[in-house]
Amino acid sequence: MKEPVDSTEFIPSLRASIVKWRQQGKKGVWIKLPIGLVSLVEPIVQEGFRYHHAEPDYLMLVYWIPDTPDTLPENASHRVGVGAFVLNSNGEVLVVKENSGEFKGTGVWKLPTGVVNEGEDIPSASIREVKEETGIDTEFMEVLAFRQSHRSFFSKSDLFFICMLRPRSFDIQKQDLELEAAQWMPIEDYVNQPYNKEHQLFKYVAEICKTKAKMDYSGFSAMPVGPDSGKETYLFFNNRDFN
Amino acid sequence: MKEPVDSTEFIPSLRASIVKWRQQGKKGVWIKLPIGLVSLVEPIVQEGFRYHHAEPDYLMLVYWIPDTPDTLPENASHRVGVGAFVLNSNGEVLVVKENSGEFKGTGVWKLPTGVVNEGEDIPSASIREVKEETGIDTEFMEVLAFRQSHRSFFSKSDLFFICMLRPRSFDIQKQDLELEAAQWMPIEDYVNQPYNKEHQLFKYVAEICKTKAKMDYSGFSAMPVGPDSGKETYLFFNNRDFN
Repeated sequence: MKEPVDSTEFIPSLRASIVKWRQQGKKGVWIKLPIGLVSLVEPIVQEGFRYHHAEPDYLMLVYWIPDTPDTLPENASHRVGVGAFVLNSNGEVLVVKENSGEFKGTGVWKLPTGVVNEGEDIPSASIREVKEETGIDTEFMEVLAFRQSHRSFFSKSDLFFICMLRPRSFDIQKQDLELEAAQWMPIEDYVNQPYNKEHQLFKYVAEICKTKAKMDYSGFSAMPVGPDSGKETYLFFNNRDFN
Repeated sequence: MKEPVDSTEFIPSLRASIVKWRQQGKKGVWIKLPIGLVSLVEPIVQEGFRYHHAEPDYLMLVYWIPDTPDTLPENASHRVGVGAFVLNSNGEVLVVKENSGEFKGTGVWKLPTGVVNEGEDIPSASIREVKEETGIDTEFMEVLAFRQSHRSFFSKSDLFFICMLRPRSFDIQKQDLELEAAQWMPIEDYVNQPYNKEHQLFKYVAEICKTKAKMDYSGFSAMPVGPDSGKETYLFFNNRDFN
């Protein structure tokens, strides 16, 4: 729906349509209502519609016509984040100190992290975050590990991918808004920070990075498997073992 | 918000609160509005609030008080699915024929698949889907690969995890609503289906399963790294290489 319409006009027309759709055997009715048409939300809900999802500028309402169980697809359930393990040829890892959030003032040097934007590929997101936070250009290599957690945000879950990147530049340009400091740090110093010893998740992640740096650890690399709906689709798998 | 309240009461009180919060240096205001209070949506939007997200029974509205850029966390961006590769000791894989959706009538034998519920772990989701569709009890072994795609559903993205499971039972009880048939199939027959030869993504997935069955392929196993907000958190990584 795009054009303004009065509820005294819209609701009778919606009712007539649902009668027709029921006869035609249609099942689900979707109304994508721009926030500018907010005055229609209440009358539409009074017709028996429920919320499906919302974005800043619209609300999606749904109605299931038949008496069978509702098979409408579920809403998005996960937020996705990335952490970047960028190792240079001197065995140093790119680390940052954040000046807000839970790490503020802790002195902990951590991997650059960020949220994957809607429609963004995991490799691109990890490259973008490193560039934004430190100015370093990188190339995506592998996903080394990922974590699933729950209730990170209301009832939503969280998937967080640790990505290994190869640096293409070396001079750090720190982003001032989010960061107190950024540097290249010997990987042993990064791993041996007390915080990484005391927190099981961080300990594993640090040890996995160290194993990758020193020895033979194969993560999942990204294989383009053809565009779908105009965007690239990637399959991530253990390409070393596969070959 | 839980109790019914009239907008002529609520809006003046909201305005007064925002004045106070502004003085206190508060930044973000969240209103979680049950669908029963739908009559307040329009007046709240008229106060400058926007939608953040919605679930069937509530709408979350937000307002950013200061003149700085809005740093409110983003909404969930991904749906998550699982496909189950269940291999028995005869070298047979558990496959299904769907009677609805894009595979209906194609004759393609495919891995059981499903959507990960809100708050559900990937290993549990894969075990549940196999049980629901085929009655087979399984144990989670590894994530063999995962795929990220976009615009699978409105503007949302999709993460799909191929999980290897070990069967704990062998007698198939097919779920009748979604499936035309289910069977144990020699893995070579599964891999050699024309559909799997012609579709790049399916071809890779089938070949990865075959590599896992016949040779030395290491996926990511799931390590519990301690509960967070009362739910288990898993870290998935190449445990064979790590050790």
